[in-house]
Order: sequence, then structure tokens, then C-alpha cells
Amino acid sequence: MVSRERWSSNFPRWFDWILEEAEIYDYGRYPVKGMGIWRPYGFQIRRRIIDIIREVLDGRGHEEVLFPLLIPETLLQVEKEHIKGFEDEVYWVTHGGLEPLDVKLALRPTSETSITFMESYWIKSYRQLPKKYYQIVSIFRYETKATRPMIRLREVTTFKEAHTVHDTFEDSERQVLEAIEAYKEIYDRLAIPYLVSKRPEWDKFPGALYTIAFDIVMPDGRALQIGTVHNLGQNFTKVFDFKIQLSDESHDYPWQTSYGISDRIVATVISIHGDDRGTILPPNIAPIQVVIVPIPAGSEEDRRLVDKTVKEVEKLLAGHSIRVKVDDREEVRPGAKFYYWEARGVPVRIEIGPREAKNGTVTIVRRDTLEKMETPVSTLVDELDRLFNSIYETLKERAWNYMKSKIKRTTSLDEAKSWVSERRGIVELPWCGMDDCAAQMEDMLEAKTLGTPWPREDAPGMKCPICGRDAVTWIRYSKTY
Amino acid sequence: MVSRERWSSNFPRWFDWILEEAEIYDYGRYPVKGMGIWRPYGFQIRRRIIDIIREVLDGRGHEEVLFPLLIPETLLQVEKEHIKGFEDEVYWVTHGGLEPLDVKLALRPTSETSITFMESYWIKSYRQLPKKYYQIVSIFRYETKATRPMIRLREVTTFKEAHTVHDTFEDSERQVLEAIEAYKEIYDRLAIPYLVSKRPEWDKFPGALYTIAFDIVMPDGRALQIGTVHNLGQNFTKVFDFKIQLSDESHDYPWQTSYGISDRIVATVISIHGDDRGTILPPNIAPIQVVIVPIPAGSEEDRRLVDKTVKEVEKLLAGHSIRVKVDDREEVRPGAKFYYWEARGVPVRIEIGPREAKNGTVTIVRRDTLEKMETPVSTLVDELDRLFNSIYETLKERAWNYMKSKIKRTTSLDEAKSWVSERRGIVELPWCGMDDCAAQMEDMLEAKTLGTPWPREDAPGMKCPICGRDAVTWIRYSKTY
Repeated sequence: MVSRERWSSNFPRWFDWILEEAEIYDYGRYPVKGMGIWRPYGFQIRRRIIDIIREVLDGRGHEEVLFPLLIPETLLQVEKEHIKGFEDEVYWVTHGGLEPLDVKLALRPTSETSITFMESYWIKSYRQLPKKYYQIVSIFRYETKATRPMIRLREVTTFKEAHTVHDTFEDSERQVLEAIEAYKEIYDRLAIPYLVSKRPEWDKFPGALYTIAFDIVMPDGRALQIGTVHNLGQNFTKVFDFKIQLSDESHDYPWQTSYGISDRIVATVISIHGDDRGTILPPNIAPIQVVIVPIPAGSEEDRRLVDKTVKEVEKLLAGHSIRVKVDDREEVRPGAKFYYWEARGVPVRIEIGPREAKNGTVTIVRRDTLEKMETPVSTLVDELDRLFNSIYETLKERAWNYMKSKIKRTTSLDEAKSWVSERRGIVELPWCGMDDCAAQMEDMLEAKTLGTPWPREDAPGMKCPICGRDAVTWIRYSKTY
Repeated sequence: MVSRERWSSNFPRWFDWILEEAEIYDYGRYPVKGMGIWRPYGFQIRRRIIDIIREVLDGRGHEEVLFPLLIPETLLQVEKEHIKGFEDEVYWVTHGGLEPLDVKLALRPTSETSITFMESYWIKSYRQLPKKYYQIVSIFRYETKATRPMIRLREVTTFKEAHTVHDTFEDSERQVLEAIEAYKEIYDRLAIPYLVSKRPEWDKFPGALYTIAFDIVMPDGRALQIGTVHNLGQNFTKVFDFKIQLSDESHDYPWQTSYGISDRIVATVISIHGDDRGTILPPNIAPIQVVIVPIPAGSEEDRRLVDKTVKEVEKLLAGHSIRVKVDDREEVRPGAKFYYWEARGVPVRIEIGPREAKNGTVTIVRRDTLEKMETPVSTLVDELDRLFNSIYETLKERAWNYMKSKIKRTTSLDEAKSWVSERRGIVELPWCGMDDCAAQMEDMLEAKTLGTPWPREDAPGMKCPICGRDAVTWIRYSKTY
């Protein structure tokens, strides 16, 4: 019994469906709202995405660490803007066993405070800088908005937070650029497009000088924030009285940046590369890259030959480090197996029946285009290598084209309003640079301000649609998650 | 300025010293008792140990998952013995933001309850069994005893907990054996010895039928528990009313086991393979396997030749996937570099001076024996391969011999008493099998009961030193952590 959901026309349902159908993530059964379970298949997808994050960050000189989950109230309160930004949504531990604790402990919502506190012990001199730490941990936010698996959770189980320290403002600015490059590299390797914006003043990270954000348009036309980069200035180092020796022997507060990526990176990969049959995983992160389905037909002898060929092909691929699985369940028909593995996004299916076995060939079906072809076993490994690349390129091009089609630049507020209200994506309007005009546009569009293009873009000859003054740049709005 | 601590004569100080000196783990500065920070070097050791755990478990058909940190009080209470065992040491979340929560949430002390709850949704038939899940997560216990870095923590950041389900008791017993084999394999790969005991009734895991434990003798003669395996019987499946269809079409509660390894695995590797200079890492988990120290001497031309050779050797080793680092700090003398990397346990040091550079050789110093030898660059890669194996074998043999020397089998309570009170290790005494006699021995020895040998051992002709009846087996005692 095939039950599927429409990818583009009913995305929220499709997303819930695929998490359950492909056994990626269990959501809604666990008796705490906003918390779910990574099931084995989903865990393996997540793990491979984390491997890519690690490779990219390690390759750029980041060092992985692990800080405590619990942050005492006294530490979290040190930076005033920061605590104001989080105090309504922090979980508090108040008791150990039956005893009340002297100081309440927060489940970390993010770790700027605890990391800056420890850095003040470890870092004494400009010679140790720049220093780039990161950790991949659970964070907790008592969300009052409607929760959604992987997208808006109370326990975010995959929070990669990087924290860097610099001896000059200029070096922290360079780090912001490096962080943006690193995030582009991560998303490129997942064939995921992105739009980079500088968030408006009123939506920056609590305690930061400014925030640069990566957004994507989901299949229902709403924008999803999938990464943020903050220049923290000296805000945290000052309040923690964290000074270092500079090259001229004077002492001053160092500069910091921080940047994060969450579970949403997994949600994005599963969703953007999807269709009505399920998800389509890029081969580099697919837990299973090739599934072999034996086609049972013909005589007893035919079957033995098919079995033998299946085993040979499995061995051949495994020997070339291809993640291969044979689906030899006797009680399941081939059609049901196709459905099963298509939902799970396995990039390539190989069918082997008596005809193929006799000819020394296999039938290959690629998941992205569903094209079929027959290939000799002798050239199969090369063919798969080519195919994996082609699938990656196809997914990437398709995803970028899709996103571009969802971004509308216009000077008309009416056109902008219908674009966002019909959930067709993101709009870009000319803007004079005044917060008040941006706020009015936000109200009129009933959408969220994503901010201005990054890198900054001029809007020559354009007028702000609210006040009529010359526009200095563009500003982006969208319905969001 | 060299400050070191004595490994065998003052182990507790040595352990604190090495964590700080080698920048492994920061403990005592973070403002919550019993919680520390994995620093970059320690994190990389830990990560490689985790990789081995994953390899061994995945290779035996375990599937990695990730469950929520927070367990509602209502779920944790379902199994009565279980909650009794943990209620004094659970951290409770009582507030989300400023609002009190309807149901208190525990920071997981272990996950039997939440995992069994979800398994009851996922597992319906014997055909899905055996099922072996595991996760590697933080757990929390509000310890009232003195805390110790990695050994007795309030946040245990590396808890590998496996949870399995079976259709028969026999299969759960087979799983206990598999778990023990898996743990032996993990510790063997780390060159770590172990003693396997069946814990006494009064010290089994809360909710289990029985507990098998792995212990080791630390350098101060105290035993440390480094792994436990529990047969849970049907205790948890019954209270969660989790039934499955059996092969005869009847329905019954399935059987479970669980088994865990904690941060202590890292503490053990660092400690057991130690000496007065620091730790000695087995090459398979050393973040840096070879450090190259250029020896600056001779003419300007000599130095250029040394630099050139250093770069060539670095490239050669990196090209063979050897984790190599060149310590080219100009301001630090070679002797200080030797000290630095010896403390960090880098298994092999390579020295290259003008003489070596001219001869096409390098000087190799192995960390375990401190033996020096000169080797031609042309055979260096093979030599290192041989050396890594030899270091592993030497560490393993040394550690096993050390532990064997710390276990005393005796029939004399007096001899046993002086053995444990002088912290010479573990004693084994004949035992009649009566809990009362075991408890009396525990009192007299002022030591902890580790339990009986696993597999079970007879004690033919021996008498219980308390009651004088025939002994049925041996029983182990030790000072413990």
C-alpha cells in the first residue's frame, strides 16, 4: 500500500511523512514536546553531514572542544543584552536529587558565556591568536512557538557552534569572511543553495555587533535560516574582563566572532532534494549509495545465476568502498522494494535479473532523474563514479535554479505582497536604510525582514517605496519558519 | 622549568597534573562542580577512542541512535527499582523560561526508560529481533561523593549506552556474552587489561537481573569500574507493557540487555599507559603519532639542509597517512620540546640534525622504552609501521603484567586485609556463596565487593574464611574509586 505526500504542493505534510516513512526521525511520540529521536537511518545521514562540517572546519584551523551543558545563572547573566535575549526561553535546573541548588543552572541555549569565561584562563597573548574553537552539542530553548521536527525544536541535538578570538577588530572581520566561506563550502558539498543576508539591527544575535545569515527557500515558499555568523566585537570579553597582551606589549580586550549551524542542515538536505517519491540523498552523505534488487524470474537455474551475480557485484562494489546493500527479502516484491529505497533517497538502484546475469550486465536506475540504463559489470565501478558526480551536479543545479526562481526583485509593494502571501518565496525591495521604513514594509507585507544582501549591493536610481527617498540598498522579506 | 609528578607513588596528583600539562581536560575552573572541559588535544584522543567503540559495535550489528536528554518524571518512575536507584542523584529541570513546568524533567542518568518506551512503538514482532541500539551521550548524576575529573563526574560527557531487545531469555544471555566480547575487543585495541566480575546482588544495576562488570587496577592500587553489562530480563518491558508477537504467534514481553562505557575509558588509557614523564598513547589513538624535532646546530648551510630534510620527511609520512607534526618553534630548545611531547604521549619522536640530514637518516626515539635508533629515510615508513606495532604490544604486555601483579588470591583474611589496606590491588578470597559472609568480609577488609569471577570459577577444597563452610567460588575485594 503506497502512501505518499506531495512534495511541492503540501510540503509540511511531506516532511512529516518522509521522516516517518524513511525512518529518519521519530517525532511526536516522545512525551516531551519539541524533542525527537534520531533513528538509525537518520543518524547515519546526520553523521555524514557532521563529518563534512568537521572536515571543513578542521581544514581551516578550527579545534574541536566540548564544554559542559550546564551554565550557572551567574555566568549567563554577565552579558546583559545576551541574557535578555534568552531569559524567556532557557530551561532551568533547580534541583539535584531532592536538594534545591544554590545557583540555578541553565541548559545551554548557546555557549558564548561559558566559552569566554574559560578562554580568559587559556589565552594570555596575541601570539596564541587567532584561536578558533568549535563544538557540536545539544542546545535547549523553551520555544513557545509551534515546534517542528528538526526545524524548531526545544532540544536542538546538532548545534555546531564555533567561537573565535582575535587581537584586532580587522582580524575578527577577516574571520567573519572565513566563516562565510566555510559555510558556503559546507552547503556546496551538500548541493544546497543559500542566500546570504545581513540581518537588520533588531534581529541580530543578542550581544553581537551584527549578524550575517544564510537562508534558503523551502518547498512551501517559506524562508528557513540555516546558518548565522556573528561579529561579537569586544562585548563578551569586556564583561568577562578578559584581556590579553598585544604585540606592542599593551593589554586590551580581544575581539570575538561566533557562528552556528543546527539540525536544520539535515532538514534542508532531506527537503530540498526531494520529490513525491521521497528524498534524494547526495551520494557523498548517503548511508547506502547503491541498493541491489535481484529480480526473481525464470527457472531455478536462472535464480542461482542471479544470486551468484548479485553476490559478485556486491563484493565488487564493497571492494571499491562503495556503500552497497542487497535487498534480498524474499517476501517483498521488487516493486515494493523500489518504492522503499526511493523514499529513503538511495542515489542508485541496480537491478539484476536473469537477462542481466546472462549478459554480464546490470540495469542501473538513478534516483534523481529515474533514468534507466544497462551497463556491463566490467565497467560498473567507473560508471558509478561518473554517476555519483552527475547526481550531485544535477541535484545542485536543480536546487539552485529552484531557489533563484523563488526570489523576486521588485519596486512594487503590491507585487511584493502577493509574492510573499502566495508563498512564492523571498522578495527584494529598494530601501532607504531607515529602520522605520523597513518596519513599515514588514507590517504591510506581513512577512519577516531577512535583511540586506551580503555582500552589500547598491540600488542605483531606486526609491524607497515607503518614504520615496533614494534607496541605498535592497531589503529582503519572506514568510519564514 | 620541568615540573612532573610521580606516576606510581602519587597517582592522584599525577592524574591532575597530566590533564593540565598535556592540555587534555580542564577541571576545577569551570564554576559548576563535577563538570569539566575537553580541550582540543584531549578531544582528539577521546574522538579516536569513540571511533574504536563505534567500529566494534557497528561491526556487531549495533545501530546508533540519539534520544532526548530530558526524561519526564512520569517515564522515569515507571520501573520502581530503577527510580529508587537514581532518585537521589537526578538533576531536575523545573522551569522553562519563567514558567514552572507541568511535569518535572530529569537530565538522563541513563536511558532504559525512554528507550524502552520508544521500542514499544517500533518493535512489533520477533522477526525484527535481535535489535541492538546504542548512543554516545552526556549523562548526569548529582554525585554527593568527592568528584574527580573523568572518573566521578556530575556530567559524564562520553556515555556509550547500548540497549538490546530479544525474543527469548536465551538470546538475551547470548547478548550478554556478545557484549562482553565486544568490550574485550575495545579494551584490547587500547592495550588495556581488565578483570571481569559478576557484581554481588546488592550492587547490581537498578532494575537488572544481574550485572557483569569490567574493572581495572589503577596505579594507586584502587580498582576502577570501566564497563558494565546488565541482563534486564523482562523488568522494563513488563512495566511499559511492551509486547511482541513471537514465532508461535503468541504475544509476550521481550527480553532486554543494556551495557555501558563512560569517560573512564579515556582516563584509563591516559593513566595505565603512563610514567613519570607523562602519558604514552597507543599509536592507533594518538592524535599525533610522530613528532619531528629539528636539531639546530652547525652552519647556516647545515640548517638549510636540516630544514629541507624535515620537510621531506614530513611529506613522506603524511603521504602514508601517518599523523605527523613538525615542532619548529624557534624560541624553544630541543630538550624542552622533548619534555613537551613526552608528556603528551606522542609514541614516536624523530630528531633530525645536520649529521642525520647529511647521512640520509633520522634518529627515532620511542616513547614507551625511550630507546633511540638511527634509521635510513628510505626504510622509515616500514620501520614506523613495525614500531607502532611494537609499542602497542609493549604497552599491552606491560599493562597486563602490572595488573596481574596487583591481584592476590589468598585464603587468609589478614593477608587480604593488608593487601587492600596497603593499596596493593584486588584480593580474591574463597566464599561459601552467602551474602552475609560476603558482607562481613567487606566490613573486615574495609573494601568494596567487586563480586565473583566471570566466567564462574570453582574453589575446590577451599573454605569460606567467615563461616568455615565449603567455598563454592572466589570473591573479590578492593579499595575502589
